[in-house]
Amino acid sequence: MSVTTTYNVTGMTCGHCENAVREEVSEIAGVENVDVSAETGKLLITSTSPLVDADVIAAVDEAGYEAELA
Amino acid sequence: MSVTTTYNVTGMTCGHCENAVREEVSEIAGVENVDVSAETGKLLITSTSPLVDADVIAAVDEAGYEAELA
Repeated sequence: MSVTTTYNVTGMTCGHCENAVREEVSEIAGVENVDVSAETGKLLITSTSPLVDADVIAAVDEAGYEAELA
Repeated sequence: MSVTTTYNVTGMTCGHCENAVREEVSEIAGVENVDVSAETGKLLITSTSPLVDADVIAAVDEAGYEAELA
């Protein structure tokens, strides 16, 4: 099974920001792929099972930004 | 002796960008302090002797941005 969930992230301005988000979100168990864009603010996470929203929001917060389910 | 030289840097958008510039510029021999702002685009470098402009421009380029003497 593979699930893709989309979040809106505010505050990213550049590739460094994208990397910071990607690194934190990649540490969540079950995450297979992370696609993030500072330009659009979209964060697409592909995972082996549905994610716990709070985990994603906490990971993005750890990177220094705010996420909400799109 | 201590010399402070100011450069204008284009392309920085956030604290990650500032850190990238700070790290590269700090590696130049004789550099004592680096003060960089994404908001103003100003890069102030304090060094023990006058810097070679090309070294600073190359360091900032390595970080991914463009610098010119202010």
